[in-house]
Amino acid sequence: MTQLHAIIPAGGAGTRLWPLSRRDRPKFLLDLQGAGMSMLQQTVLRLRPILASLTIVTGVAHRNAVQVQIEDLSRRGFLNPDLHIQIVAEPSGRDSMAAIGLATYLVMRKRGEQAIVGSFAADHAIADQVRFIDAAQSAIKGADSGFITTIGIDPEGPSTAYGYIEPTSIEVASGVHKVSRFVEKPDQVLAQQLVAQGFLWNAGMFVMRTGVLADHLRRLHPDLDRGLRQLAESWGGDDELRTIERVWPNLKRISIDHAIAEPAAAAGAVATAVMEESGWSDVGDFASLRDVCKDAGGEGTDSPQLLVDAPGALIRSTTGKPIVIVGVPDAIVVDTEDAILVTNRTNAQKVKDAVDQMGGAGFTNLT
Amino acid sequence: MTQLHAIIPAGGAGTRLWPLSRRDRPKFLLDLQGAGMSMLQQTVLRLRPILASLTIVTGVAHRNAVQVQIEDLSRRGFLNPDLHIQIVAEPSGRDSMAAIGLATYLVMRKRGEQAIVGSFAADHAIADQVRFIDAAQSAIKGADSGFITTIGIDPEGPSTAYGYIEPTSIEVASGVHKVSRFVEKPDQVLAQQLVAQGFLWNAGMFVMRTGVLADHLRRLHPDLDRGLRQLAESWGGDDELRTIERVWPNLKRISIDHAIAEPAAAAGAVATAVMEESGWSDVGDFASLRDVCKDAGGEGTDSPQLLVDAPGALIRSTTGKPIVIVGVPDAIVVDTEDAILVTNRTNAQKVKDAVDQMGGAGFTNLT
Repeated sequence: MTQLHAIIPAGGAGTRLWPLSRRDRPKFLLDLQGAGMSMLQQTVLRLRPILASLTIVTGVAHRNAVQVQIEDLSRRGFLNPDLHIQIVAEPSGRDSMAAIGLATYLVMRKRGEQAIVGSFAADHAIADQVRFIDAAQSAIKGADSGFITTIGIDPEGPSTAYGYIEPTSIEVASGVHKVSRFVEKPDQVLAQQLVAQGFLWNAGMFVMRTGVLADHLRRLHPDLDRGLRQLAESWGGDDELRTIERVWPNLKRISIDHAIAEPAAAAGAVATAVMEESGWSDVGDFASLRDVCKDAGGEGTDSPQLLVDAPGALIRSTTGKPIVIVGVPDAIVVDTEDAILVTNRTNAQKVKDAVDQMGGAGFTNLT
Repeated sequence: MTQLHAIIPAGGAGTRLWPLSRRDRPKFLLDLQGAGMSMLQQTVLRLRPILASLTIVTGVAHRNAVQVQIEDLSRRGFLNPDLHIQIVAEPSGRDSMAAIGLATYLVMRKRGEQAIVGSFAADHAIADQVRFIDAAQSAIKGADSGFITTIGIDPEGPSTAYGYIEPTSIEVASGVHKVSRFVEKPDQVLAQQLVAQGFLWNAGMFVMRTGVLADHLRRLHPDLDRGLRQLAESWGGDDELRTIERVWPNLKRISIDHAIAEPAAAAGAVATAVMEESGWSDVGDFASLRDVCKDAGGEGTDSPQLLVDAPGALIRSTTGKPIVIVGVPDAIVVDTEDAILVTNRTNAQKVKDAVDQMGGAGFTNLT
């Protein structure tokens, strides 16, 4: 079985899951689904059958927490003791291209240009492990054929929360099709058209040979390519800190979608492996969390609850204080040690607006 | 100015205001409106200009709390030191006729059959003090003319939460009209008809001569009359406890409305003084509380709050924990030390259903 050097960019606060998620306790470190482990830990375990090495890129503030969670996985016997694991701490966020690019160049330095890397978000949920591995193995074949290969999600519906991928009928490997273009998050009307036309959700999972990504980066973003190469070469050496200080602040802030995926698709260099009925979700807000976990468990689900005429409610209490909901359908109620959130399914996305407005009396230290 | 011997039956848990109000911390003991005093204390102060004496009838469990609140009013200089105040502790609830009847007979024993008593709920709100005193003085005139005189509320709308009074055009004293009948809480259609026909809300305020009430009671409920007379005669004497033990458990449970007001109205012995645009409310649930206080203050209103797309919200937090509401119009959120309630204006009445359902895990000691 061809194996994969996995890259997990562990960033993003999960603002829409406030007050469960915070800047210093971001979503990927939380066990939101009652899995007995964090979303990051689940992401690692999900990759285990195809894992050749693991590189986690995270903010310097979360380095220790990530380390603890990885050691926890090892102690529980989930990880092969010989697995090469590297945690890369970013001094500041420079968006996904810098994070994934640096990790790719670190793998390339050690394993060469033919090594296959795959990047996977640290805070997504996938219910069906088997389908994920099937799709990832197809994607590895696409990568082997020289394509930037994304795992496209068979849409559950016309969501406006995700970007879309247009696959073509051209098969570049078994079950892997060329991609003609990416579409940013659409409005409702366009989303319906896209789903009807067979577009896929873009889950931001990219599999490719290190050398292929490097070639695209050198061509499309030579400055970024040069900076990342310098960082990768100095990494772990005497010059590391000085190089970081010099190079890092000047790295271009750009996502891998804009930097590589979109222009490479236009150039015919992107393919996709479809993942069908996998129960994938980005768990982007409480409505999405409600769908994923069906309140089976997870952080704060054990508190006493009494619901009267409140179908579809999602309650999370980390305090254990009893919560009563009367006549608010699809209510979302979250009680933590220092804040209470009340919203509903329809407005779950607007939790971000609330967090953005914090800073007034009583809310300064709550994000 | 003719004065009034006020009777305040202080009972009722205010279940629909849970979790602010509890069995051991009932609504009348709470400062719900940010008045700097409880609803009971406000009721007493409201009566002050016409107060000849004060009798508060409450459950034995609340006797001490009532005593403390009355002493607090005295200490703050709100009560004439010469005012005769009596707190009557009921060993068990026997509905309003027993409570008001006993207090009336106690006044009658001391002041005679011509003395005028008036009963006023301990947990209602009246915004306009002047209009209340005007209406009470009219009611005293009606009582002086021998009528059971109720203060009828000019309806703010076709509420289904209140009973109604039908006034006639027959004036028995200046501004006081005979009542033809009482109507129990109607449905929405009937409520609209009643308001259109000039019916008034029944706020349960009754003013009458002690002897007039006694005559009605003797005629309509001779057993209850006899029991209350025995209690009143023994009250404060050596025989008090033995009489209570013997008589109290056998007192008929009936409201003053059913016992006296309705049959007396049918007999042409009831009149009403109208109180217009007084801002009267029974503050029966959180929707009503929202209307009364417009969130100007009161127990639990000082906590940090952040509202996004949540017009008409009512937040009460006795913990000081910040509360965020996103996109739930007319939300009602109450946070106390041991429980959280989430509901909305439309469902405020159903809070009682939730309290009725408590007793399961985590909810046994919360009512």
